[in-house]
Amino acid sequence: MKVTLSALDTSDTRFKPLVILELAQNVKEETRKWLEKKINDEKKNGGAQLLIRPLVEKCEEETLESQNLYLIGASNIRLLLGAESVGLVKECNDSTMRVFNYETRQNFKGFSDDNDDFLTMAECQFIIKHELENLRARDEKMIPGYPQAKLYPGKSILRRLLTSGLVTQVFPLHDKEALKKLEIIWYHRFKLKYQPLDTIRTYFGETIALYFAFLEYFTFALIPMAVIGLPYYMFDWEDYDKYVIFASFNLIWSTVILEVWKRGCALMTYRWGTLLMKRQFEEPRPGFHGVLGINPITGREEPLYSSFKRQLRIYLVSLPFVCLCLYFSLYVMMIYFDLETWAQEVHQESQFPELTNLLLYVPSIIYAIVIEIMNRLYRFAAEFLTSWENHRLESAYQNHLVLKVLVFNFLNCFASLFYIAFVLKDMKLLRQSLATLLITSQILNQIVETFLPYWLQKKYDLRVKKRMQALKADVDVTLYEQIILEKEKGTYLGTFDDYLELFLQFGYVSLFSCVYPLAAAFAVLNNFSEINSDALKMCKIFKRPFAEPSASIGVWQLAFETMSVISVVTNCALIGMSPQLNAVFPDSKTDLILIVVAVEHALLALKFVLAFVIPDKPREIQMKLAKLEFESLEALKQQHIKLVAESLKEEGREEEKKTL
Amino acid sequence: MKVTLSALDTSDTRFKPLVILELAQNVKEETRKWLEKKINDEKKNGGAQLLIRPLVEKCEEETLESQNLYLIGASNIRLLLGAESVGLVKECNDSTMRVFNYETRQNFKGFSDDNDDFLTMAECQFIIKHELENLRARDEKMIPGYPQAKLYPGKSILRRLLTSGLVTQVFPLHDKEALKKLEIIWYHRFKLKYQPLDTIRTYFGETIALYFAFLEYFTFALIPMAVIGLPYYMFDWEDYDKYVIFASFNLIWSTVILEVWKRGCALMTYRWGTLLMKRQFEEPRPGFHGVLGINPITGREEPLYSSFKRQLRIYLVSLPFVCLCLYFSLYVMMIYFDLETWAQEVHQESQFPELTNLLLYVPSIIYAIVIEIMNRLYRFAAEFLTSWENHRLESAYQNHLVLKVLVFNFLNCFASLFYIAFVLKDMKLLRQSLATLLITSQILNQIVETFLPYWLQKKYDLRVKKRMQALKADVDVTLYEQIILEKEKGTYLGTFDDYLELFLQFGYVSLFSCVYPLAAAFAVLNNFSEINSDALKMCKIFKRPFAEPSASIGVWQLAFETMSVISVVTNCALIGMSPQLNAVFPDSKTDLILIVVAVEHALLALKFVLAFVIPDKPREIQMKLAKLEFESLEALKQQHIKLVAESLKEEGREEEKKTL
Repeated sequence: MKVTLSALDTSDTRFKPLVILELAQNVKEETRKWLEKKINDEKKNGGAQLLIRPLVEKCEEETLESQNLYLIGASNIRLLLGAESVGLVKECNDSTMRVFNYETRQNFKGFSDDNDDFLTMAECQFIIKHELENLRARDEKMIPGYPQAKLYPGKSILRRLLTSGLVTQVFPLHDKEALKKLEIIWYHRFKLKYQPLDTIRTYFGETIALYFAFLEYFTFALIPMAVIGLPYYMFDWEDYDKYVIFASFNLIWSTVILEVWKRGCALMTYRWGTLLMKRQFEEPRPGFHGVLGINPITGREEPLYSSFKRQLRIYLVSLPFVCLCLYFSLYVMMIYFDLETWAQEVHQESQFPELTNLLLYVPSIIYAIVIEIMNRLYRFAAEFLTSWENHRLESAYQNHLVLKVLVFNFLNCFASLFYIAFVLKDMKLLRQSLATLLITSQILNQIVETFLPYWLQKKYDLRVKKRMQALKADVDVTLYEQIILEKEKGTYLGTFDDYLELFLQFGYVSLFSCVYPLAAAFAVLNNFSEINSDALKMCKIFKRPFAEPSASIGVWQLAFETMSVISVVTNCALIGMSPQLNAVFPDSKTDLILIVVAVEHALLALKFVLAFVIPDKPREIQMKLAKLEFESLEALKQQHIKLVAESLKEEGREEEKKTL
Repeated sequence: MKVTLSALDTSDTRFKPLVILELAQNVKEETRKWLEKKINDEKKNGGAQLLIRPLVEKCEEETLESQNLYLIGASNIRLLLGAESVGLVKECNDSTMRVFNYETRQNFKGFSDDNDDFLTMAECQFIIKHELENLRARDEKMIPGYPQAKLYPGKSILRRLLTSGLVTQVFPLHDKEALKKLEIIWYHRFKLKYQPLDTIRTYFGETIALYFAFLEYFTFALIPMAVIGLPYYMFDWEDYDKYVIFASFNLIWSTVILEVWKRGCALMTYRWGTLLMKRQFEEPRPGFHGVLGINPITGREEPLYSSFKRQLRIYLVSLPFVCLCLYFSLYVMMIYFDLETWAQEVHQESQFPELTNLLLYVPSIIYAIVIEIMNRLYRFAAEFLTSWENHRLESAYQNHLVLKVLVFNFLNCFASLFYIAFVLKDMKLLRQSLATLLITSQILNQIVETFLPYWLQKKYDLRVKKRMQALKADVDVTLYEQIILEKEKGTYLGTFDDYLELFLQFGYVSLFSCVYPLAAAFAVLNNFSEINSDALKMCKIFKRPFAEPSASIGVWQLAFETMSVISVVTNCALIGMSPQLNAVFPDSKTDLILIVVAVEHALLALKFVLAFVIPDKPREIQMKLAKLEFESLEALKQQHIKLVAESLKEEGREEEKKTL
């Protein structure tokens, strides 16, 4: 397969395609030429100074489908300069981590001028994405050929192209060899072992690697709980003193593991360099729209949207809608309880109790499926609403979305359990519901998330491959085939859903842990297979996602901590309600409640003290950060001493002149 | 009064004494000369490049007492360079706040090369202190003349001189005129008005101004509580629904005021420039000692002390000692209750109930005095122990000291109240004890802290002045007299005790607010006079303290927030115990407790949500900070674009060479 060299000024051998850009069908020739020039042009002329070439030559256009695909790459030096501009942190020869600096590049470990492997492919792709997104309009008032696609100075051209539909997608290319190696060590050989987190990070970037690290960590952290919980099931322990021990262990444990995770995470992200990475200035998110005005912070002309209008939308539309959804969710819950009662009645009146025994589980299973469906539907609504609220920054959008989704999912998943526990006070039903909900949702999730898409994907892949083979056998179509296959794959929408799943699982395990200790065991089993199915999903089903640097799991840390606080309250309440414990205090129920409340307060206080006392970063990392800080302050001081000497010398000279 | 010009290379007119350094009696001449040279020497030779001169000439030595006093000043340009080195933040002409930079000095508001008022006197003194403390040894192995006062490269010379007793004190000079003006607007004319916080800040620095700002804010914040509390006392309201309303208001109020304070504080410290000031690298604290070794962070030779030994000291000595003190405090409390019972008995058996009625208050008053004495004794012990723990950093020392003192003072002050409330369940006694403790401790504090020292000070001042007049009437002794007077004054040991007093007051007001709503009114009254007596203390009794920049009230914010959380628990418990509320639920005490616990949890949750929702910085400040961040990132980016252009051009040239 030949590729045209038009508009490229470097030799062919140096070009390595990293990112694919797909234009819409029938984009005007004028626009194509303009975009190619923009991407290729020098930085001082307002270009991105990257390399771009169409996937297929003009002459071949008719025979093959995708004349709208462009390959984007960059010269080695351009990538290194880009690494500096995004503030990438790399290891130095003295094994400290430092922000990459092109001028001092020789100090960095593994760097030599003729070495292309210094930056990983994922990093290169991240840099190219960053440069493309920062390709900004100067004097252009519109995208040439499309007067409706308006531009203003400083507007990101790629974002305008995407929102006006002229560019359909931009995605990074898989590295087939590296991917194959990764698959083999990651999940092909099924056995109990740690995941190759560093390799995952090299290939997919820090955000995804952190998710898998957290999933693995969380799974291992659940093992002690699962092991301690098993005998309760096996020996049918019903003594409440044993349950109290289990619950207390559980509550302290969950605090400890969340704190220890923070430390482990800091250790890992220090090694990966993201702990030291400075936050970039946040640009408005792609979907943000408004009337052109002067941004008071940047002094630039950009769309502005009044904060008051946004508040109105949030409080007059979004909030009532969320409340309505919550009400609806409770309504569905009541229907479930009606169904449950009906099933009980049928079972009791039935002449074949063995047959109708199964029927008892049916309402829970149906309810679990309904919950899953409602969660997914609500997710779309929440995304739509949050997008309509028109937040300026991606982070604000994410926070509002997470809040909406978490509140609803929490209520939707756990309301029925709270109702059974604290209104019906039926511990047997609680245990049964909890088990059905947990297991059903886990099975559903794995099917919907991974196996269904995988199966569909496989069918499509086969079709494309057959057509390829039929088309031409004389040309090397490897790259072409790879791109055609990848461009049709789904886009991985980020780790949100995966974390949410874990969050709900954590809720099932910890909220009612003293009633159903077996939950942890099920969660562990699920997570071992989840690691594999998520790995499969990342490698096979979706397009390669752009690597995103991140230093922690962000808002999820807070969400998990909140859940662990709530679980202290629920567990204490459950233990207080237990008939066994009530039998110990036959005369004074009041004393019992007071004791339970006191224990609860003590546990909560202990949790806060633990969270406060355990440092968020291990000593080793603290030392390394302090050392870096010291060095930069020292450098400043040296610079300053020079300045003082010079200035005072000058002053002296002036004095002399005056006295003369 | 003439002053010697030895070792000074600038003309006399430019010298303005800012800081006084007092040597010990009989310091060797060799050492004096060396120190003078060090302070005066150029920075590149390892000096501080400041101006120093003895207060009195050699010839007059015999007649006057203080030949050991030195005046320290600096040239204007030296101070400006020092301001840059400490990272002072000043207002620019475009009314933004920026870190002062000597090169761009013309951009700053109120700056001109012949204007000496750009830096306030307090700032100049802070800069001189910083430069003196950063005067470090180079090759010297010891202080000349004193082989036992060892030095090593990088050791702060002033700190070694202080620890070896060669320098007895270093303190800034008062500005008599400015002080007089400040006194007049601050407290001379007694009327209800805001304090001149900006003037206080200019004169005493941010840490002290922030304390007075917080004291004033806290007092005003208490007024609504005091106003709402008054009718309870006047009309003898005993309905518990009213108490519930008061307590609920109280709890929400305390959260709101603490959050709002954070915002006000950010607003104020932004204006003062300290919000933007970067934290300096922390040097070991003066008292820290250990074996010389290489510090892994700085790579410098300095004393090291094993963290393990410190932990041993903390857990094997300090912790048991604190526990012992706590036990002793509880023991004293039990004695107080015995006394209380005895007084009750005497009163009941007495034939003169009018006379013995007063006796009922005596045990509380004695106990309050004993508490105060124990607090003060414990404070010494805590300081000694924390110092013996040998913390490397001042911040670690402070944290350990604050923790020790807070725990003990909390228990010492409130244990008896908790005992009365929750064990004796005697609300009348609780109210009486609370009132006695609060009022006695407030009166005691004001006397011990201010009026006693003021009286002693005044007597001493008169004596000195008389002697001065007798000594010489022919010379202008203003400066001399001022220095002699000031050097004998006490040293202000920081805002710790003042905050602690407020903290305990906050506890008295909020912990049992639903039992004794009048507490807030007493606190308000006390604080109005506290403002004046503290102001008097700062202006008259103590030496002028060095200004310390700070951006918030630090650990005290956390302490107050913790107290407000604890007060939710205590108030809910008190309301739950009230007989009136119990009468509403005559049949089921269980329901009552459950409701109270539910309300308590809801209040706690509300507090956390409020703290989370109210942003710590006002929008205005957030915008300004974002703008600064944007500008610095933009500057970096521009620099980077230039670099890219140059580097790629070079690459192009090399390519050309290759192809040629």
